Amino acid sequence: MSQRTPSDPRCVAVVGATGAVGEVVLRLLAERSFPVGELRALASERSAGTTVSFAGRDVEVQEAKPEAFDGVDFAFFAATGSLSKGLAPEVARRGGVAIDKSSTWRLNDEVPLVVPEINPDDLDKHKGIVSCPNCTTIGFVMALEPIRRVAGVRSVVVTTLQAVSGSGKPGLEELARQKAEVGRGDAPVPDFYPTPIVDNVLPLCETFRDDGYSTEEVKLLHETRKILADDVDVSMTCVRVPVPVGHSATMLIETERPLTPEAARAALAAFPGVAVVDDPAHNGFPTARDVEGRDEVLVGRIRKDLGSDRLWIWQVSDNLRKGAATNAIQIAEEMVRRGLK
Amino acid sequence: MSQRTPSDPRCVAVVGATGAVGEVVLRLLAERSFPVGELRALASERSAGTTVSFAGRDVEVQEAKPEAFDGVDFAFFAATGSLSKGLAPEVARRGGVAIDKSSTWRLNDEVPLVVPEINPDDLDKHKGIVSCPNCTTIGFVMALEPIRRVAGVRSVVVTTLQAVSGSGKPGLEELARQKAEVGRGDAPVPDFYPTPIVDNVLPLCETFRDDGYSTEEVKLLHETRKILADDVDVSMTCVRVPVPVGHSATMLIETERPLTPEAARAALAAFPGVAVVDDPAHNGFPTARDVEGRDEVLVGRIRKDLGSDRLWIWQVSDNLRKGAATNAIQIAEEMVRRGLK
Repeated sequence: MSQRTPSDPRCVAVVGATGAVGEVVLRLLAERSFPVGELRALASERSAGTTVSFAGRDVEVQEAKPEAFDGVDFAFFAATGSLSKGLAPEVARRGGVAIDKSSTWRLNDEVPLVVPEINPDDLDKHKGIVSCPNCTTIGFVMALEPIRRVAGVRSVVVTTLQAVSGSGKPGLEELARQKAEVGRGDAPVPDFYPTPIVDNVLPLCETFRDDGYSTEEVKLLHETRKILADDVDVSMTCVRVPVPVGHSATMLIETERPLTPEAARAALAAFPGVAVVDDPAHNGFPTARDVEGRDEVLVGRIRKDLGSDRLWIWQVSDNLRKGAATNAIQIAEEMVRRGLK
Repeated sequence: MSQRTPSDPRCVAVVGATGAVGEVVLRLLAERSFPVGELRALASERSAGTTVSFAGRDVEVQEAKPEAFDGVDFAFFAATGSLSKGLAPEVARRGGVAIDKSSTWRLNDEVPLVVPEINPDDLDKHKGIVSCPNCTTIGFVMALEPIRRVAGVRSVVVTTLQAVSGSGKPGLEELARQKAEVGRGDAPVPDFYPTPIVDNVLPLCETFRDDGYSTEEVKLLHETRKILADDVDVSMTCVRVPVPVGHSATMLIETERPLTPEAARAALAAFPGVAVVDDPAHNGFPTARDVEGRDEVLVGRIRKDLGSDRLWIWQVSDNLRKGAATNAIQIAEEMVRRGLK
């Protein structure tokens, strides 16, 4: 395909267009003025025939099957892993680029795993599939990388507090339903999560592996190492909290070289896509509610550990935006900028 | 006062009888068949004249003033620090024992800070005031001590996820009100907490100090060291979550001697007041909702850190019971058993 200018229209497909992330991809493609020529809304057979909204008009959802990707430049996959496993190679085979939000391709050596502010050069090696990190990993590495660049990072201890929309619409629906149940005095009925999430916090995100770790926890380690190309040590517990949107995390960071909280604050504030909200004297700290609808990762509570030179930080990001849709579209924007598509 | 048998009736005062913890103290005194002869319900002048329920009968609340403690054996303080600062010495002066739930006396060298399963011998040194640790500290040390006894503890990294009832009735009322506001489509109005707690998590418990730590966080370090008589290193972030009752925490524990998860599990299960709920293969883990109304501290997700020999655990406790009322009454029970009162 001949080289085009950045503003030339592209044919764009969104797979999983009816899901929690897919809806945000559609909205942000318009908001960010991505050069969309043709827009194809795709989903599993079950959702085909429904309509979604794009740039003020209704678009009928078609079934995601190989032929649907003929002529597509970018296909954003915000769907199940099994769908992207079968169909992302079909996009690549047809000369397009699949930007996948599922975990399917993330640790594949042939597939770049990219946060554009951190490792955009990895895009140059793409072979038609680019992977978008897990929503939890993105906020984590965005807060870590500014510190790593100035002082190196030896280890991080992280506890995540993850919103239910990280599980997609089923998570949002479960919390909303259980809130209503509790509101009218009934017992909350667990369906999607193994135990009630309303008025509760669950030390489980996704599913448990045989070694007692959740799949979400292990992703955080391996994805971080791949994105940073650095064997940083990550110790983690991932927790689900009754918050609709916005992942939070506490992070205790051991740097390789000494770094004061002031220097960390400056490094974080200067990093693209990161904003510092840190004014304890006036109760200034970022929260999930503050970050909803924003693209920046917000960082606060930057302070030295009481008994060591490690640094504590508190980090929040909109898991549907920078944690998913924004990062995926930024990948496409960067590929356009680099003349890769 | 002459020595009495454990079952002889005692004159008992509850200060702050109308508060979130005071109500539970009254309920548990009856439930646990504490030998209450006379019961005096006390509170600040504002609440005097109202009634509370004890053992099925109404008790009129009197103003907490020095004379109210004449003849009192045990005075449970579940009130503000300023009330206990002025009145606990009045109890001691009159020959009674003040068991205080506020932070006022916790780090005073003349005052034992006691979790009866851990350091009951410290009660022998009492001088009329005994302090009850912070609700967060109690769950923390209850989960730590079994491990410390078998392997020693060098350091712990902890993130707490604390229920709003840890702030007393104002926290409970704020969450309930904001849930109703959000439920009818209105914006939640922050009043007691600096920003909405509904659908959110706040990296602030209590108030910030000049060094950027919250008062709650620093308590966790100093109280732990006093209770354990051990300079264990504690690194912490305390987070408020939209949960009515039940404090949760992630804990990463570095032991002095190697300890397998299996051995840690056995040590925890054998410790009085601790129960293990840890069956990831069947999604078995404890949550705040599970622990509400129970006196045990529940521990799960016991596993080795992926990159070191440290151990991760997840711990939950009912902050109004073992975190407050239960522990205070256990202190009185232990003092009765020891013939100290």
